[in-house]
Amino acid sequence: MLKITSAGALSVLASGKAVTEMISASICQYDIFEVSLKGPPSGNPFLDVQLKAVFSLEHRTVVVDGFYDGDGNYKIRFMPDSLGEWRYTTTSNASALNQQSGGFLCTAAKTGNHGPVSVRFGHHFGYADGKPYFPFGTTCYAWVHQGKPYEEQTLATLRQGPFNKIRMCVFPKSYEYNHNEPEFYLFPRTARATPSNPMGTNDYSQFNPAFFAHFEKRLEELRELNIEADLILFHPYDRWGYAAMGPEVDERYVRYVVARFSAYRNVWWSLANEFDLMKAKTTQDFDRLLHLVQQCDPYQHLRSIHYSKVMYDYASPAVTHASLQSYDFASAVAWLKVWNKPVVYDEVMYEGNLPRRWGNLSGEEMTRRFWLGVIAGCYVTHGETYLNAGGGEDENDKIWWSNGGKLSGSSPARIGFLRKLLEETTTTGLEASPEPYYLNAVSFAHGQQGFEAKAPAAILYYFDFHQPIQYTFPLGAGTYRAELIDPWQMTLTPVAGSFSGKPTLQLPGRPYQAIRFRSV
Amino acid sequence: MLKITSAGALSVLASGKAVTEMISASICQYDIFEVSLKGPPSGNPFLDVQLKAVFSLEHRTVVVDGFYDGDGNYKIRFMPDSLGEWRYTTTSNASALNQQSGGFLCTAAKTGNHGPVSVRFGHHFGYADGKPYFPFGTTCYAWVHQGKPYEEQTLATLRQGPFNKIRMCVFPKSYEYNHNEPEFYLFPRTARATPSNPMGTNDYSQFNPAFFAHFEKRLEELRELNIEADLILFHPYDRWGYAAMGPEVDERYVRYVVARFSAYRNVWWSLANEFDLMKAKTTQDFDRLLHLVQQCDPYQHLRSIHYSKVMYDYASPAVTHASLQSYDFASAVAWLKVWNKPVVYDEVMYEGNLPRRWGNLSGEEMTRRFWLGVIAGCYVTHGETYLNAGGGEDENDKIWWSNGGKLSGSSPARIGFLRKLLEETTTTGLEASPEPYYLNAVSFAHGQQGFEAKAPAAILYYFDFHQPIQYTFPLGAGTYRAELIDPWQMTLTPVAGSFSGKPTLQLPGRPYQAIRFRSV
Repeated sequence: MLKITSAGALSVLASGKAVTEMISASICQYDIFEVSLKGPPSGNPFLDVQLKAVFSLEHRTVVVDGFYDGDGNYKIRFMPDSLGEWRYTTTSNASALNQQSGGFLCTAAKTGNHGPVSVRFGHHFGYADGKPYFPFGTTCYAWVHQGKPYEEQTLATLRQGPFNKIRMCVFPKSYEYNHNEPEFYLFPRTARATPSNPMGTNDYSQFNPAFFAHFEKRLEELRELNIEADLILFHPYDRWGYAAMGPEVDERYVRYVVARFSAYRNVWWSLANEFDLMKAKTTQDFDRLLHLVQQCDPYQHLRSIHYSKVMYDYASPAVTHASLQSYDFASAVAWLKVWNKPVVYDEVMYEGNLPRRWGNLSGEEMTRRFWLGVIAGCYVTHGETYLNAGGGEDENDKIWWSNGGKLSGSSPARIGFLRKLLEETTTTGLEASPEPYYLNAVSFAHGQQGFEAKAPAAILYYFDFHQPIQYTFPLGAGTYRAELIDPWQMTLTPVAGSFSGKPTLQLPGRPYQAIRFRSV
Repeated sequence: MLKITSAGALSVLASGKAVTEMISASICQYDIFEVSLKGPPSGNPFLDVQLKAVFSLEHRTVVVDGFYDGDGNYKIRFMPDSLGEWRYTTTSNASALNQQSGGFLCTAAKTGNHGPVSVRFGHHFGYADGKPYFPFGTTCYAWVHQGKPYEEQTLATLRQGPFNKIRMCVFPKSYEYNHNEPEFYLFPRTARATPSNPMGTNDYSQFNPAFFAHFEKRLEELRELNIEADLILFHPYDRWGYAAMGPEVDERYVRYVVARFSAYRNVWWSLANEFDLMKAKTTQDFDRLLHLVQQCDPYQHLRSIHYSKVMYDYASPAVTHASLQSYDFASAVAWLKVWNKPVVYDEVMYEGNLPRRWGNLSGEEMTRRFWLGVIAGCYVTHGETYLNAGGGEDENDKIWWSNGGKLSGSSPARIGFLRKLLEETTTTGLEASPEPYYLNAVSFAHGQQGFEAKAPAAILYYFDFHQPIQYTFPLGAGTYRAELIDPWQMTLTPVAGSFSGKPTLQLPGRPYQAIRFRSV
């Protein structure tokens, strides 16, 4: 992040173009350019002061909201998506912040920075620079609310792990196995909870800049790890009042969060977790808040909303993809067709051993669910819920799915194997067979339309609990080499020969095997 | 079977009652009393001669159809359900067969003969003598059409195995892995198949008594093994013409089969297999034929019909239970409630290694499906489809599901374990939890209503792919002893102590475990 503390002297640059003023600052594409301005510190600037900037590059203009960061500090953050000389001018109802201007040169992204992720090829995702992005997420709802040592352990685990997305809440979480008080509160906390005031008291007229500075540090660390932060803006697991702030505070909160976070290229918006369990809000409230995010976010980050039992209307243009709590993979083909957008199975239960039906899948079953999702042309999110050695529910018994920490399950290695396999199989994504029985999917080349493609680049079969000793594969017009895959042993075994038409191959006669055909 | 060759001299008997004529014959309850009469051998007796008998015991009368058995032999079979002196009188349009009368004494059933199975307790089955019957069936569609050595091997396998029901076709079968010609045809076969007459020619105006004598021998052998014969009257896997005989022949066939077979106490009627794949018939044809069976069968044996993709209307009073092709166990609770009759998952795919999606489940998955069905308060049918060592599709490569023979899979032993477990857990049947997530079921005592029962006799939990290390069980008012069950290892391990209220028990933390609570 480049921080400009005033509308600095503009110095030149860039490929032979004449510029009217000198631009001294430069920033890489998809990084954050931040303008800091001093303005009125008195009254309640969170409520009283409006601040915007218009960024422009040649014929384009992008309007960006600024925000108050406490102590008379005002900031505007911008993530440039195009190379060249960007300029900006502010507008504000505070004269010290009004009509400030400046600019910067946007230079090429550094290696490893691929820009934000968006939808492409109908049902898939990609980075802005064209690199494929296949979400292999995990779930650590409240990891940023666990304190520094634990949060750093989570980051160390993520660094070693197979995951490139994390589902995480902005608000702290109060739920089974997660009862700790957070170090930071979003709003000034003016009274702790007491028996007569069980939620405590929040000053909803202000935000707590220390909370956001901490949160943004974590966002930045995730960004450095190339992990997408699927930010959950609302959730029902609350004992502080955040689940029932009322429409006015909800809106101010959403605007403030979008103003602060949207310049982080790795941000996704998940409007809520289990929205249908939030008793103080209606579905119309969520519709409205989704549209508000859509309206405020200059970069149109990915948007969705997650349910418990009552599915959101994912046909709505307000959501870019479906974020399911489901393990009904047989319906995937129909959902992809009806919604015509990516489908992410964001909760398929968790690998673990909790006495809760959602928290005690075997590693084998979690691995299987990833394969079922991928073979259906969709994506799946991991979570882990092993009780630590203590075995009890206490503050020290932290669980990955809520708190982060360490992973001990058997599925992450297999999920990493599948991710690598997918990444080397296709640059576009897999398209499910219209007949879900056969559990196969093709990789289509850009411009081809899935199964209509005469000779797909690759064909992947997963046999689930089926264990045929031979199978006749309808390969069609292409010529392919084949590999047997054991998703649990994480092995690929080439099959001698090349194949076309309808070859019959011998198979291991064991369940949960796969086979990949790649075009010669 | 007692065979009476004429209206014999009636001699006495029985507990001090006065009788008007002497009765010389006696037969055990639920065995077959058969009257053989000589009648007209000329013309076509199958079409020309009608024969009935009215059997009476005190105030009751039962009307039974007779049948022509070739060579001038006419027979009437009757299975008495009550002890005492039965008398009969025939009526016929042939004078030699008309107004013949006689009687027999029905004595107590021998040990091991429990009578026919019917529906009881809403969703369950029981023998006529009150013994519980929980169907654990297997599938050998065409086993009676494989020739003596193979058929005897099948019987030997059944004798050792865990199954108490078998799904089997009356007609021979022509399908993948089953291309042999049967030894016997139902109708005289007047021309073999040729290129110009691909189905060959059948004389549908007559039946072939040798076919039926052979078939009845097999029915009797199954009866001796206490195996219910779930007889499939029609099926689509045909190359002889039987799938498209037309309504008149269909009706004559149904009447003849019911007249011959219904006195076998172990007969169930499965009107068709995959009825919706039979192109020459409509659903209305099957409705009509089901009603015909209902009308002709003096004993009201169990009746159902099996589908491929389009479910039959199991709410119809013409079917006594649902016979599903499905592995959607989550819908079981709803189906039980809507249909209010037993639900049998008669096809859940087969354990094996065929290159067909329906024929290559692992033994573990088949075992799991049995548990899922039973825990849902339903029943499940097995099938096995391992290719023999030859590996190819030829006449000698017989497969249990179609041909019988030997079993080599790993699920039958586990199915036997589950059957034994169920039989010692409940005398009425299991009633599923209304919340399928928790995969538990109670055994209710007669008069109790499942989960409404305050203290069920037993509670069975199955954890499927869940692997909690502890779980809090809502046992309610009763006091129970607990056993951990490993359905694959086939072990029961008692847990020390007794339990009531909401105890928390430690569990193995492995998937596919179960636990049983039994009332102290």
